[in-house]
Amino acid sequence: MLRRCPVAFAPRMMRAVKITAYGGPEKLAVTNIQRPVLETGEVLVKVAATSINRGDIAQRKGLYPPPLGVTDTPGMEFSGTVVDMEASLEDAPGYVPEIGSRVMGIVAGGGYAEYVAVPASLCIPVPSAISLTQAAAIPETYLTAFQAMHHHAGLLPDKAGAAQYGAGLKTRPPAAALGRRYRMLVHAGASGVGIAACQIAKLFEITSITTSSEAKVEACQQWATYAVSRTPNESGDVFAEKVEAAVGKSGVDLIIDPVFGGRYLQEDGQLLAMDGTVVVLSFLGGSKTELDGPTFFQRRATIRFSALRNQSDFYKTSLTQAFRARIMPYIQSGKIKPVVAKTVSLDQIQDAHRMVEANELTGKCVVVVDPKLAEK
Amino acid sequence: MLRRCPVAFAPRMMRAVKITAYGGPEKLAVTNIQRPVLETGEVLVKVAATSINRGDIAQRKGLYPPPLGVTDTPGMEFSGTVVDMEASLEDAPGYVPEIGSRVMGIVAGGGYAEYVAVPASLCIPVPSAISLTQAAAIPETYLTAFQAMHHHAGLLPDKAGAAQYGAGLKTRPPAAALGRRYRMLVHAGASGVGIAACQIAKLFEITSITTSSEAKVEACQQWATYAVSRTPNESGDVFAEKVEAAVGKSGVDLIIDPVFGGRYLQEDGQLLAMDGTVVVLSFLGGSKTELDGPTFFQRRATIRFSALRNQSDFYKTSLTQAFRARIMPYIQSGKIKPVVAKTVSLDQIQDAHRMVEANELTGKCVVVVDPKLAEK
Repeated sequence: MLRRCPVAFAPRMMRAVKITAYGGPEKLAVTNIQRPVLETGEVLVKVAATSINRGDIAQRKGLYPPPLGVTDTPGMEFSGTVVDMEASLEDAPGYVPEIGSRVMGIVAGGGYAEYVAVPASLCIPVPSAISLTQAAAIPETYLTAFQAMHHHAGLLPDKAGAAQYGAGLKTRPPAAALGRRYRMLVHAGASGVGIAACQIAKLFEITSITTSSEAKVEACQQWATYAVSRTPNESGDVFAEKVEAAVGKSGVDLIIDPVFGGRYLQEDGQLLAMDGTVVVLSFLGGSKTELDGPTFFQRRATIRFSALRNQSDFYKTSLTQAFRARIMPYIQSGKIKPVVAKTVSLDQIQDAHRMVEANELTGKCVVVVDPKLAEK
Repeated sequence: MLRRCPVAFAPRMMRAVKITAYGGPEKLAVTNIQRPVLETGEVLVKVAATSINRGDIAQRKGLYPPPLGVTDTPGMEFSGTVVDMEASLEDAPGYVPEIGSRVMGIVAGGGYAEYVAVPASLCIPVPSAISLTQAAAIPETYLTAFQAMHHHAGLLPDKAGAAQYGAGLKTRPPAAALGRRYRMLVHAGASGVGIAACQIAKLFEITSITTSSEAKVEACQQWATYAVSRTPNESGDVFAEKVEAAVGKSGVDLIIDPVFGGRYLQEDGQLLAMDGTVVVLSFLGGSKTELDGPTFFQRRATIRFSALRNQSDFYKTSLTQAFRARIMPYIQSGKIKPVVAKTVSLDQIQDAHRMVEANELTGKCVVVVDPKLAEK
C-alpha cells in the first residue's frame, strides 16, 4: 500500500502565529513563515484547530521557552488531517496514520499554524463521534490528567495491575483491595485539566473533589463528586476543612496542583492519605513555599513536579499509547465529552489569550485554523 | 516433611529492652517480659543479635512511636535461628525457613529481645559467608538503601527493565541507554545506609558521591566514588559546588537525604538531573525548609518521603523478595561486606545508644543478644 503521497498542494509558506516580543496578548501576530520540513518518522498534518494552554501564555511572556530545537511558534496541541509523511514511514512497523486520516496530538511547539510536523507515533486517531474542533480540546489536558492519574499516582491499574504491584510495587493495588474508592483532589477544577481529570475519575470510580473560585463551583459540580470554593475560612484555611468535610479525615490519594504557593502545598500535605502523591503542574499561587517534612513523611508522600512538553518523544509515545488504549474508547462512546468553552479564529488569537489569562472560561478555548476542516 | 517442632525449650518469659520513660539512653533497661506468641504466618526466631538504628533513638525520645499493634520493645532488625513456626506454615506455599535455619530480617519493633515473632515471608536466609553478628548489621540499612535505589528511583533495572520502561514508564531505561552511568548522592555517607548505598552502587556501576563530616571523609572514600565534606564554603553552600566539581553540572539521578533542613533540600534540588529523585529519610538538619518549586519543576523532579517500618507486610515481603534476588548473592560471594563498627552486649544497650547518638561510629553498632549463637 502506498501511504505516502507527495503534496503538491501544500504550499512552501504558511500562516502561523509569531511572538513579536515578550509581553501581553498584543505581542501575538499572524505571519507567514516556512512550512515545516518532515524529519525521520514524522507526518505532516494540515491543522484544523489548536487550543490555548497556560504554557502558551507563559511562553508569550518569556517565562517558558520552547525546548532546545523546537520551533518558537507557540501551540502545544493540534487536530487535523495527515497530508504527507516522511519516506521511512512507508514501511514502518507499528502505528502509522494514513494520508487523509483525522488525527490529534501534542507537540512541543508549533500548533498555532496551518501545518505541523509531528512524529507519527504521537498521533491519536480522532474518533468518528467528535469533530476536529472538539478534538483540538483533548490532547494536552487529557494527557496531562491521565499522566498524573496513571503514570504518577497509579490510580488506574492496568489489567495486570495487582500483579505488577506485587512484583515491583511500581503501581498501587486495585482500589477494591483497599476496601474503598481512590480519592483525587484537583485544584482549578474548571480548567481544562481539572475537567478532564474529573471525567476520567468518574469512569474509573474514583471520588473527585475540586477547588475553584466561588463563581465556578456550580460548573465543577457537573464533573466532580464534590466541588468546593477556595474562599478561605476565618483561620485562613483555603480548602483543607472543606475537603475533610466531604471525604473524611482519611485523606486523598492524589492531588493535582497547579497552584503550589501560598497555603496550597501545606494544606495538600495535611490532606494526603498514606502513600499519597501531589502532582505539581505550575505555580499560579507562587513559586516558593514552606515545606513541613514530617507532614509528608508521616504519609510516605511523594511530591512530583510534572511536565509533558519537554519529555522525550519516547516517553510521549508511551504515554500516548497508554492513553489511546485506556481512554480513547470512552471518547468514541461519548462517555467522555471534551468541553469547548469558546472557539475563535486564528486572527482572534490575541482575544483568545486575553480570555484564558483572565480565567473567564470553563473548559478549553479552541482556535480554529481551517474552518472547513474543523467542522469535520 | 515436618518443619514445625514445638519448642519446649523456649521459655514463656524472655529478656528484652524496655523504654522506662521517654528521654536519654539511661531510660533503657533490660527487663523480663512475655515471649511473643506466634500469629498466622509467623516464625519464632531465637535472636542472636540486633543493631541500633536512628529510629530506635527517636522512639526512645518519644518522637517515633511504633505502628499500631506493634510491641513497644524497640529494635527494628534481627539475626538468629528459627525455633518454631505457626501451624499454618507447615503446608504453606512459597518460602518458609526451616527450623534451625539462620535468618535475618526487619521488624516494626521487638528486635532488642531474646525472641522475635516475624512473618516467614520477611525472613532472609543468612548466607554461609557471614556470621550472625555481621548479619544483624544488614537488614534495615541495606533494605533502606535498596528501596531508595530500586523501588523509588529505578536505578537498578530488572532484567526486563527496558521493556517495563517502554510499556509503563515505571522504571528508567538502563543507564547504558543514557550514554552515561547513573549518579547517586548520599548524605551522611558513613552511616549504615550510606555505606550500604555506596556498596550497592559500586556493584551496579553507579557513580556515588557522599557528604559527611570532615572527620569521616576518608572512611567514606573506601566505598564511594567521591567523598566530600559538609563544611560550608564562603557563600554558605554546603555541598553543591563540591558535587559539581566531582561529577559536573549535569546532575545526579538520586539523592538519599536524611538531613533535609537547613540548605540541604535546596542544594539537592540544584544538583538533580532530569527526572531525578530525592528520597528523604529523616530530618537531622531540621524538619521545615523552603521549597523553590521551579528548581524542581525544571528537572521534572520527585521528592519522596520514604519510610520502611510502617509499610504493610505485603510491601515488605515484596521488597524483601526483590532484595534476596538482587543483592543477597553479592553478600554470599563477599562482594558486599556489612560494616560492623562495634559490638556490645544487650546489657550495654545504653552505651550503644550513646555512641550512635554521638555519631562516633562508621558503620553499624551491633547488639549481641546471644553470644554463642552470634558467633555462628
